Amino acid sequence: MPVARFEENPLIGPADVKPSREDFQVACVFNAGATRFGDEILLLLRVAERPSTGPDEVVAPILHPDDPNRGIQLLRVSKSDPDFEEIDPRIFAYQGKTYLTSISHLRVARSKDGRSFVPDNKPAMVPELRSEEYGLEDPRITRIKDRYYINYSAISRMGVATSLAVTRDFKSFQRLGVIFPPDNRDVTILPEKVGGAYLCYHRPASGMFGRADVWLACSPDLLHWGDNRFVAAARPGTWDAWRIGGGAVPIKTDRGWLAIYHGADHNQRYCLGTMLADLQNPETVIARSPEPILVPDAPYERRGFFGHVVFTCGAVAEPDGRVIIYYGAADECIAAAETTVQDLMATLVPADT
Amino acid sequence: MPVARFEENPLIGPADVKPSREDFQVACVFNAGATRFGDEILLLLRVAERPSTGPDEVVAPILHPDDPNRGIQLLRVSKSDPDFEEIDPRIFAYQGKTYLTSISHLRVARSKDGRSFVPDNKPAMVPELRSEEYGLEDPRITRIKDRYYINYSAISRMGVATSLAVTRDFKSFQRLGVIFPPDNRDVTILPEKVGGAYLCYHRPASGMFGRADVWLACSPDLLHWGDNRFVAAARPGTWDAWRIGGGAVPIKTDRGWLAIYHGADHNQRYCLGTMLADLQNPETVIARSPEPILVPDAPYERRGFFGHVVFTCGAVAEPDGRVIIYYGAADECIAAAETTVQDLMATLVPADT
Repeated sequence: MPVARFEENPLIGPADVKPSREDFQVACVFNAGATRFGDEILLLLRVAERPSTGPDEVVAPILHPDDPNRGIQLLRVSKSDPDFEEIDPRIFAYQGKTYLTSISHLRVARSKDGRSFVPDNKPAMVPELRSEEYGLEDPRITRIKDRYYINYSAISRMGVATSLAVTRDFKSFQRLGVIFPPDNRDVTILPEKVGGAYLCYHRPASGMFGRADVWLACSPDLLHWGDNRFVAAARPGTWDAWRIGGGAVPIKTDRGWLAIYHGADHNQRYCLGTMLADLQNPETVIARSPEPILVPDAPYERRGFFGHVVFTCGAVAEPDGRVIIYYGAADECIAAAETTVQDLMATLVPADT
Repeated sequence: MPVARFEENPLIGPADVKPSREDFQVACVFNAGATRFGDEILLLLRVAERPSTGPDEVVAPILHPDDPNRGIQLLRVSKSDPDFEEIDPRIFAYQGKTYLTSISHLRVARSKDGRSFVPDNKPAMVPELRSEEYGLEDPRITRIKDRYYINYSAISRMGVATSLAVTRDFKSFQRLGVIFPPDNRDVTILPEKVGGAYLCYHRPASGMFGRADVWLACSPDLLHWGDNRFVAAARPGTWDAWRIGGGAVPIKTDRGWLAIYHGADHNQRYCLGTMLADLQNPETVIARSPEPILVPDAPYERRGFFGHVVFTCGAVAEPDGRVIIYYGAADECIAAAETTVQDLMATLVPADT
């Protein structure tokens, strides 16, 4: 197997992270951005929390940013309420509106060896804005010189947007605005300019046409994005038949930009695959893995808050060619797997389009 | 009535426009951008065409941009095909995918008096790109110095995106890329910088959360957009309870940016209303019309390709305070109504939010 799970998996679970409030429980720790930072590997964890909930109710924790206390308030709904509709463990509808059963923030975890992590006791970034009232999710980290740019899903009643922040020290974080309006997630920013512009992959969703494709956008400054171009779509009849989206920030190689992305089939089984894009024209996909490189097979990937999911927001590529893929398993815990650029390249076959 | 329909309405109908191909019929002429240009008023019409269609079939005209002939090909589907699903006169589903029953291009129409228009014999802009395979729709025109920026909906299987083009003469048009990925439409670009940045209103749609709100974005160059901020939402229980979107390019007044927008209720009745936004902070809505300023009441607004619709993409504000609103009626023809800035201001009441 070219992608080998760590024996220590799962690396971080809900019990390893301290709640941000006394009345909250950490339900899930998953989908972490990853970067080398000095002599450490840092993960930026997505920590999903919720209050204790009775068996006959659901609770949506919602930020009220205009509240003088800037507090998270709890919408409690009885499951027998005729206006309640269960969708899945993550989502419910009430009075025709969509709510989440948990609220996520971002938290740093630190490691010397990339295997044993110590999560910070306090969050790095918590929901603060109206565009974040349902939480911050799925961060990706792109290092550009001495700055670490963090894009994350900003969830609110308006939908799923992507926002940007920046840090130099992983202690203080500066917000830089909503870079993609709803619905758009799975953004991965390339670590250097190509043809004079910053580039990112992003994943807008068309409700009207039922599509969720990967696109490329260009920027002069990382803050403003344009010249959007279609890149890649789901492939009917395959492991990524239903939807795809960017995963880890692409790795620059001699042969192209190597992306590890996620794809789901119509059973909502999420796997990881690879895509290789032209170095100078990253909108052009040269090759793609016909088979997934990681399938949710391990017990902690099959069973959890939302089972049969492996989902990456970050990988660390070492100078010697080793690649450590950090990934969320079953939407509940963090796991990792090791591979090499060479082995990932071997999973690719030339793309049709 | 502060908004008076022209007696000449409808101003332009399908019979007034020459088809772009011999085998096509013009089905609808509507939703036109509008601007003063020298001593003329120009409209940039949305012209929807389709081939002749038998009673038992539907046809989707689709651009094949990679075809050496760059031709529009016809997908003919029998209504008795079990994979066919009728949605409405504009849209159908086939084998689980969404198609349009017509394909739109943009066409200039010219007038000295703003009432009597002569459409050009040939299109101004036709579908050329993969992002435009289902057509170009709903243009808005923003004049900035001697350039006229045109944003339009670029429709494709990937969804509804917004693209930008520019012209100085309304003869040659230069494409400037997809500025907002799917689904995003109803973009109106302000005619001058505010606080050092170009601004536009846009209308992303969240399939996941079932929302379609108006947002504001900022740009250094009109090509790249960021710092997206929520502006306004539909108002439950009112004429704009279901969805809203930008209409004409906002008019600068002493009291704020005056926008004429469209709102629809859950019966898909589309009306026009007004919104006033702060001059220096156009994300802040100061006032909004509790009642519509134009309701689809006239016969040509009630009956047509898609009835009970008035929908504007452009208004011409004269120095004397007169405002001519050009609008699509029943998704089939172009009509106009006259009002004044003063009368539009009188429709507003202070906004709650």
